[in-house]
Amino acid sequence: MKINIPESDQERIVIVGGGFAGLMLARKLAKSDYQIVLIDKNNYHQFQPLFYQVAMAGLEPSSIVFPLRKFFHGRRNVFIRVTEVLKVRHDQRQLDTSLGHVNYDHLILATGADTNFFGNEELRKHSIPMKSVSEALFLRNRILADYEKALSITDYETRQQLIDIVIVGGGPTGVEIAGSLAEMKKYIIPKDYPELDAGEIDIYLVQGGDQLLKGMSEASSEKSLDFLRKLGVKVILNDRVVKLDGERVYLTQGDPIPAQKVIWAAGIRGNVPEGMPKETLAPGNRLIVDEQLRVKGMDGVYAIGDLACMQTKELPYGHPQVAQVAMQQARFLAKAIGRKKSAKKGFRYKDLGSMATVGRHRAVVDLPNWKFQGAFAWFVWLFVHLFQLLGAKNKLFVFINWVWNYLTYDQSLRLIIRPYQKQV
Amino acid sequence: MKINIPESDQERIVIVGGGFAGLMLARKLAKSDYQIVLIDKNNYHQFQPLFYQVAMAGLEPSSIVFPLRKFFHGRRNVFIRVTEVLKVRHDQRQLDTSLGHVNYDHLILATGADTNFFGNEELRKHSIPMKSVSEALFLRNRILADYEKALSITDYETRQQLIDIVIVGGGPTGVEIAGSLAEMKKYIIPKDYPELDAGEIDIYLVQGGDQLLKGMSEASSEKSLDFLRKLGVKVILNDRVVKLDGERVYLTQGDPIPAQKVIWAAGIRGNVPEGMPKETLAPGNRLIVDEQLRVKGMDGVYAIGDLACMQTKELPYGHPQVAQVAMQQARFLAKAIGRKKSAKKGFRYKDLGSMATVGRHRAVVDLPNWKFQGAFAWFVWLFVHLFQLLGAKNKLFVFINWVWNYLTYDQSLRLIIRPYQKQV
Repeated sequence: MKINIPESDQERIVIVGGGFAGLMLARKLAKSDYQIVLIDKNNYHQFQPLFYQVAMAGLEPSSIVFPLRKFFHGRRNVFIRVTEVLKVRHDQRQLDTSLGHVNYDHLILATGADTNFFGNEELRKHSIPMKSVSEALFLRNRILADYEKALSITDYETRQQLIDIVIVGGGPTGVEIAGSLAEMKKYIIPKDYPELDAGEIDIYLVQGGDQLLKGMSEASSEKSLDFLRKLGVKVILNDRVVKLDGERVYLTQGDPIPAQKVIWAAGIRGNVPEGMPKETLAPGNRLIVDEQLRVKGMDGVYAIGDLACMQTKELPYGHPQVAQVAMQQARFLAKAIGRKKSAKKGFRYKDLGSMATVGRHRAVVDLPNWKFQGAFAWFVWLFVHLFQLLGAKNKLFVFINWVWNYLTYDQSLRLIIRPYQKQV
Repeated sequence: MKINIPESDQERIVIVGGGFAGLMLARKLAKSDYQIVLIDKNNYHQFQPLFYQVAMAGLEPSSIVFPLRKFFHGRRNVFIRVTEVLKVRHDQRQLDTSLGHVNYDHLILATGADTNFFGNEELRKHSIPMKSVSEALFLRNRILADYEKALSITDYETRQQLIDIVIVGGGPTGVEIAGSLAEMKKYIIPKDYPELDAGEIDIYLVQGGDQLLKGMSEASSEKSLDFLRKLGVKVILNDRVVKLDGERVYLTQGDPIPAQKVIWAAGIRGNVPEGMPKETLAPGNRLIVDEQLRVKGMDGVYAIGDLACMQTKELPYGHPQVAQVAMQQARFLAKAIGRKKSAKKGFRYKDLGSMATVGRHRAVVDLPNWKFQGAFAWFVWLFVHLFQLLGAKNKLFVFINWVWNYLTYDQSLRLIIRPYQKQV
């Protein structure tokens, strides 16, 4: 069955993925002379940098996601389809989806990356990923439900398994979760759960290498470690998880940690759709693209964002998989498709800097010529993220939430809203 | 296993249910000399009058629910347990729950009421209830997902089944859902789904009797019917659903209506826990209580709210099952338990009036001495509901949402956030 999209004289560009890269490109091309088909499995764009605040009950999912259709009101050449891509059949210039198949003149793959469990089924089974707003909500419900459960547990070891949390991976996500869990322990648990001894709650952050926030400056790495330790997070460097059984976490050294909840933020792998030739694949399950972001050997197929891997002499493993790269690639590709002169010399990434937050008044910022940490860095972090968030109403709601939480030392969304499942 | 609650010298009052009745009572008793155990299956109180706005994507669940624990910060005699009640064993003054058992000196049942399918399994299977915030979210996801699906359906009849909606029950919930669906059809569908012909969407409201909003004034009944018809809702009076098969809705008269979605708002039944003696039951599965709200023949057991049925000469079927009664009963019972003189003569309900909203500038209000309809009634409705909502932050967020929606003719939360289920 064919997806029901009107045939037109316009060439058709199919964009798969409504993340930073795909959405930006669709918006840039919305006024062009192409027919644009934007495909995503969700009907919204999600703002990944704030997932951890959803998980920590500081923000609602709706504040950090934005319905895709709202971007394209009045654009008669843009067609949005909420469906899953099953296979690329490039010989027929056709995409199979769960709604039916769709043909393309140009195909842009912007399907991003998902949690990488490195093929380890045990890790996947016993740990919680954080790569979508649904997963963030799942984590929130799990944390809160476990505190509730812990109230009825008189056995110390069993209670530890419920209230201790291990975070694996010392990148921005891991650091941000660890920091906000530590703040929850400090400010919220004593008020909400006076029956629990907050001192019993242990938060572990496990990092394989010898520094946190790899890729940022040394000052940022060191300061974030310092911030976390001051907040009481048990940071374990140079170690890794060798076994999980749903009750304990085993590292190469030391006693196993009693913790049922393990948050896995230790790696990602590209979401390569079925049907892509083997020779297009780069390490990390990404797609090899040239300087024009064309997928290797596939005429009319492009990849942008976390999925794309543009290997150069300086960057043999491609660009960092961050929002900045995704958005710059989208802007570049819009120009390249429009045959703008400026696109001729190929994509060049301009690093605008990076940042991470640990907690109240504690963040680290690396700008190209200025690195700073602490309270001012924290306000910069808040401002930049608020500014990048899409939608005026989202900005307003996040802003009010942040001010509210800042003043009250509280995050008031501690609701375990269980999804209703119809029993048939 | 016993639930882990410290033994104390205080008499223990166990309250089951954190709705309007149970929560109000727990708050009134929080400063008393009793040990209070508040049991609910959720960790939050939900504001039922605004469920329909959650279903229509106008509000987020978190704006209309409030974490129970936040009401009792610093109250060392209040213990909250999130669990399900399995059985009342009054001979042992004991309650069985999924967390273990708990003993009581006084037991207050405030478990409310749930959708009544009158034992009809077919109705239950093919219709959507609206008695919890989770169910409201389910309905929202279902409506939005069906619009997305409809885009790919070229067959007229099949598309009708996806976009038409039948609401059964002409009480406030049915009227409010029908009105807001009609507004969604008018203001939102043309912008979000230009490919759909909004004119094809039919909204039916089926009511068994010959008037809507039974129990309100004749003026309100007539005006609400008028409002709905002006909004394009197909109101069918004096008919009822005789068969549902998930594709069509069969009434006693006329052709079957092609609609997969049926919202069931045509009756409720009390949530009587297991273990209650037969002689305590009143019609509608409620518990018979005397003027002191004591359950018939059970010393130390009380029922309040939708569950309670205080049969008097004027009210042979008990009080209306509305929030006002629940809150007044809770206030009364707090006094009765505290042996206040004012409670001696028994519970008397003071009807403060009732209201319902159909849509923008369209509501009906019955005060004891004044009945009015239209724009002013609508603002009164908004103000009263905002005022009754618990929590300053909830009030603020709902207020901003309403102003935003009012100005933009839009409800911007059209997100199909599918719950993440861990695959193990």
